[in-house]
Amino acid sequence: MLMIMFYVAITAEAMTAALSAGRRNMDWFGVCIIACVTALGGGTARDLFLDHYPLYWVKTPYVLLLVCGAALLTIAIARVVDRLRWPFLLLDALGLVVFTIVGCNVAIETGAHPIIVIVAGMVTGIVGGILRDVLCNDIPLVFHGELYATVSIVTGVIYYLGLTLGLPTDLMVLVALGVGFPLRVLSIMFKWEMPKFVFDKDMGE
Amino acid sequence: MLMIMFYVAITAEAMTAALSAGRRNMDWFGVCIIACVTALGGGTARDLFLDHYPLYWVKTPYVLLLVCGAALLTIAIARVVDRLRWPFLLLDALGLVVFTIVGCNVAIETGAHPIIVIVAGMVTGIVGGILRDVLCNDIPLVFHGELYATVSIVTGVIYYLGLTLGLPTDLMVLVALGVGFPLRVLSIMFKWEMPKFVFDKDMGE
Amino acid sequence: MLMIMFYVAITAEAMTAALSAGRRNMDWFGVCIIACVTALGGGTARDLFLDHYPLYWVKTPYVLLLVCGAALLTIAIARVVDRLRWPFLLLDALGLVVFTIVGCNVAIETGAHPIIVIVAGMVTGIVGGILRDVLCNDIPLVFHGELYATVSIVTGVIYYLGLTLGLPTDLMVLVALGVGFPLRVLSIMFKWEMPKFVFDKDMGE
Repeated sequence: MLMIMFYVAITAEAMTAALSAGRRNMDWFGVCIIACVTALGGGTARDLFLDHYPLYWVKTPYVLLLVCGAALLTIAIARVVDRLRWPFLLLDALGLVVFTIVGCNVAIETGAHPIIVIVAGMVTGIVGGILRDVLCNDIPLVFHGELYATVSIVTGVIYYLGLTLGLPTDLMVLVALGVGFPLRVLSIMFKWEMPKFVFDKDMGE
Repeated sequence: MLMIMFYVAITAEAMTAALSAGRRNMDWFGVCIIACVTALGGGTARDLFLDHYPLYWVKTPYVLLLVCGAALLTIAIARVVDRLRWPFLLLDALGLVVFTIVGCNVAIETGAHPIIVIVAGMVTGIVGGILRDVLCNDIPLVFHGELYATVSIVTGVIYYLGLTLGLPTDLMVLVALGVGFPLRVLSIMFKWEMPKFVFDKDMGE
Repeated sequence: MLMIMFYVAITAEAMTAALSAGRRNMDWFGVCIIACVTALGGGTARDLFLDHYPLYWVKTPYVLLLVCGAALLTIAIARVVDRLRWPFLLLDALGLVVFTIVGCNVAIETGAHPIIVIVAGMVTGIVGGILRDVLCNDIPLVFHGELYATVSIVTGVIYYLGLTLGLPTDLMVLVALGVGFPLRVLSIMFKWEMPKFVFDKDMGE
């Protein structure tokens, strides 16, 4: 079940990334690259940090075809995708939580420290979006938007705590989804944000 | 012969990257870094993705001196380099094809899946230019310019197909050069472009 | 002693990075990420290039708490930190030299070529700042500011030369500090800069 949700999430990430790329007039190839980086960049960064080889998409290259296919489909039906705003926000929220759980699992397998388990979940959840924004020449949205990384951290902490308490993995996946998913959706609905740090005076350097 | 063309290509990439850096008023050191990232970044990304250590420039550090030397020479003779526009576009086209072939070879050595062989060739060919544009604070040219990645993919597919059909490597290098090089040159001459995906309405998130 | 200075330097880097992030209205989470990337990004890049696993912060995850703590403290006392301009420039100069020495040591351990030892020191010293500027959507300061990378290279060369001549490590740490630290401070005081390469005509591509 986690695996199915994982593929649904990758597809959804690829499609929303393709819309972002379309707003910057990229060509079809650029759209595919942005989709791959967004959907797979988080897991790739995590694997590089943890020395966890082979990378997921190197071992299972068909996922690249899935992502590029979803991106090209988005070009064909952009108007429809654009109207389905809420379904996509929900899929994106699902993706964030699923990516976080998958990332925690990988770190647990490598025997990492609890802090690193949480960080690995968060890196998997958010780095794709950061890379997308850097390639599109924006300040990453995740640094000044709604709760996003926070949802990932909360999800990871709950999931990992449950596992260390000896609760079954399947149960904890459901609990993590049951907390992280509504938290993200509510933060979008009510525009919950982290407090901002606004600092104006120039320090000189 | 491939090795000689490889060094020629690295030198040419370093020199055109140095001109880019000069347009952004970087200092000599910045010019050298941009040159190194552009000339060696594609191969480095490929090696990180494939867990192929040691990195090329760590094993053969003299290539760093070659790249920095070429970059500093470009500063000295910028006016001349600028006038040699066509020779450099030709060298750049040669570089794209040579980098692609080298990248495919590395992936084949590691026993990668055919899709990954093509991707490794493309990463080697185009990531250097993407990193250059990110460091110069541009949206990467490769996402909305002439055929570039496409040339790399076509070259990689032909090269790899030939090898799997049992044709000799030397022949396939020549064939790949004979297809990829003119394809890139023609796409510059006639401004062939991939279709663009232009999408205006904001999706909200 | 080097270890103590290393932690002081990481803390100082985290705090100045937090101020940078504050100037871009990032939220608390964004501030922590920018602080981590700036303080730990150089060492991470070096370790990825040298295949030196586990990464420092994966092995010692408490350093992440130190960096985030320093960043959040900076938010609380931003006005004070801003007034302490000179102490922070001095700590930043110390950090550059200490990071360089640590980077050289790691490369020496892995048995790298002398050129790579110097490059590893430089990567450790400057990549954090480059990543910070890319995430904040700037052209990296290190490419067109005061002597920075140059200080790192000079420090690394002196340190490594001394070690190959058989001088004791402790002595060479002191010598490297005694040369690199004042060099950086003087270059800030007198605005020493590398010559710039300004090139205006567009090359066409």
